[in-house]
Amino acid sequence: MIHLAIDAMGGDLAPKEIILGSLDALKAYPNLKLTLFGDLELMKPYLVTHERLYTVHAPKFFDMGVKDIGRNTLRNDKDTSMIMAMNFVKEGHADGIVSAGPTQALIFSSFFLIRPMKEMSRVAIAPMIPSVQGKPTILLDAGGNIDAKPEHLVDFAVFSTVVLKEVYGQVNPSVGLINIGTEKGKGREIDVETFNLLSEHKGINFYGNLEPKEILTSDAQILLSDGFTANIVMKTMEGTAKAMGTILKREIKSSLISKLAAVLFMKKQLKNFKKAMSADEVGGALIAGLEHVVVKAHGSSERYAFMNAIRQAKQMVEFDVINKVKKALGSKNE
Amino acid sequence: MIHLAIDAMGGDLAPKEIILGSLDALKAYPNLKLTLFGDLELMKPYLVTHERLYTVHAPKFFDMGVKDIGRNTLRNDKDTSMIMAMNFVKEGHADGIVSAGPTQALIFSSFFLIRPMKEMSRVAIAPMIPSVQGKPTILLDAGGNIDAKPEHLVDFAVFSTVVLKEVYGQVNPSVGLINIGTEKGKGREIDVETFNLLSEHKGINFYGNLEPKEILTSDAQILLSDGFTANIVMKTMEGTAKAMGTILKREIKSSLISKLAAVLFMKKQLKNFKKAMSADEVGGALIAGLEHVVVKAHGSSERYAFMNAIRQAKQMVEFDVINKVKKALGSKNE
Repeated sequence: MIHLAIDAMGGDLAPKEIILGSLDALKAYPNLKLTLFGDLELMKPYLVTHERLYTVHAPKFFDMGVKDIGRNTLRNDKDTSMIMAMNFVKEGHADGIVSAGPTQALIFSSFFLIRPMKEMSRVAIAPMIPSVQGKPTILLDAGGNIDAKPEHLVDFAVFSTVVLKEVYGQVNPSVGLINIGTEKGKGREIDVETFNLLSEHKGINFYGNLEPKEILTSDAQILLSDGFTANIVMKTMEGTAKAMGTILKREIKSSLISKLAAVLFMKKQLKNFKKAMSADEVGGALIAGLEHVVVKAHGSSERYAFMNAIRQAKQMVEFDVINKVKKALGSKNE
Repeated sequence: MIHLAIDAMGGDLAPKEIILGSLDALKAYPNLKLTLFGDLELMKPYLVTHERLYTVHAPKFFDMGVKDIGRNTLRNDKDTSMIMAMNFVKEGHADGIVSAGPTQALIFSSFFLIRPMKEMSRVAIAPMIPSVQGKPTILLDAGGNIDAKPEHLVDFAVFSTVVLKEVYGQVNPSVGLINIGTEKGKGREIDVETFNLLSEHKGINFYGNLEPKEILTSDAQILLSDGFTANIVMKTMEGTAKAMGTILKREIKSSLISKLAAVLFMKKQLKNFKKAMSADEVGGALIAGLEHVVVKAHGSSERYAFMNAIRQAKQMVEFDVINKVKKALGSKNE
């Protein structure tokens, strides 16, 4: 039985969509047990009795716009749903945690409560992103850390390789180094050094430099850069997709006949289009480099997206990814 | 009369589309004179007699995939269409140059032949990009220079402000600093310092930090970052737009009825969608920081895109943008 702690109050649509997604996950996976942390009064309307569902009352929760996360957070906010769920994992009662709550709070508290694994000196945020080929693809570090070193990026590449092999069954997934040109020697010092380290690494299938005009179409399934650059890439994809969606909708609505055509004949296709570009399909972001499984679901997660984030966490535990990453990293210099 | 030198052999579709775009521009703008540089044998099929059209035979041209651009280029390739056109401008025969040829060759040769203006210590590539609001928007430096300093970015912001005001008639266009978060203090050292300089600058309407998830929808019309980051942003937009187009097409084609609906009722709307996301509409990229007007049209320019790039260069000359930029920069510390 795999046991996950759920921050039932995190996310724009919590607790409703979080609870519904959790119930969907329990239905789909008979080897899954969930403990939901949240305000029982607010959760009650959506809860049902289920033999593998537990609840723990958490009197407080983080606002999605919370600022000033710092050392005091762990002391002052220890009765929030997120930190209670985190401590539950820390104390060994559950195997991992899923939260759609505020990213910085999740990163910070998991860094100090779940703790980084000693084999990896940095923590990274690794969202799954859509790809035209429909192959699972990881972008990292999307977390905005601005002081990464080449050897950290290599650790992130190893982590992602293990995840794609073990959880997603991908054969020899390749690592593309996000860069301004494809030739060796392109980019900043960190890019040139990372290129060299990745080329020499036996445990990594190195694709080479990857220009982001191929970001969603390339064969590389691990898209790697420092926390600043990968964060910019992620947000640019989000911004471009949003703008294109707006323009498409506006164009379709601009004529009655095309609006009718869209409603009558193309509803399913336009829905599929939206689905293909949505992060909901592929699950949340992994927090890479910790002693336990932590998955950050998107802040605007509806039940389906949250169920997928749970599936992802469950599989990370099921396939013992953390230990396999440790093993891969531990042997990197052999 | 405004006189532009045209590299008629640059671009994937040269010389045909370049010549057709040039003829369209001559038709549209009675105060425009063009001198086309290229292989007369190859150009002949598309040329017509026009009182404001001149041609100069250039025996060679740059391959679009040319590598190893360097000091020797200016000597060894001085009989290419691009460098002949560039020298024509340098010698004062024309007011500016438009080329769809290889970017690095254009940047390099314009740096050494057209020369940087002394008021600006770096040259930047400043493409016009689409925006949901349809307002002219400039992204820079998209050129891949990796050693920019905060004061260079401020110069780029001044340049772009003058262009948007003078050429595009925009009232008080604002400058957004591309960053991983909106709060002051976010980002790398260069971002923090540039933020401070922009805040204090009297000639700049500073929008603040801009997360690229707002890249195509924000009110900021000048999107500013160093050459590495802005290049990554530009290529990520391109990659995302391309992937979304592919997925949309695939979804529509997946059912006969929606394909029919698209053909019958939505053709215009889907065409407008493509148009709204296309760089062809808004013109080419300006090379900022030079003594004369240099416009880089997209490598895949068809006649319409190339005509727009010519229009852009013509207006840059017409509104005396270079001198106005010099004046704005010269007085920056007063």
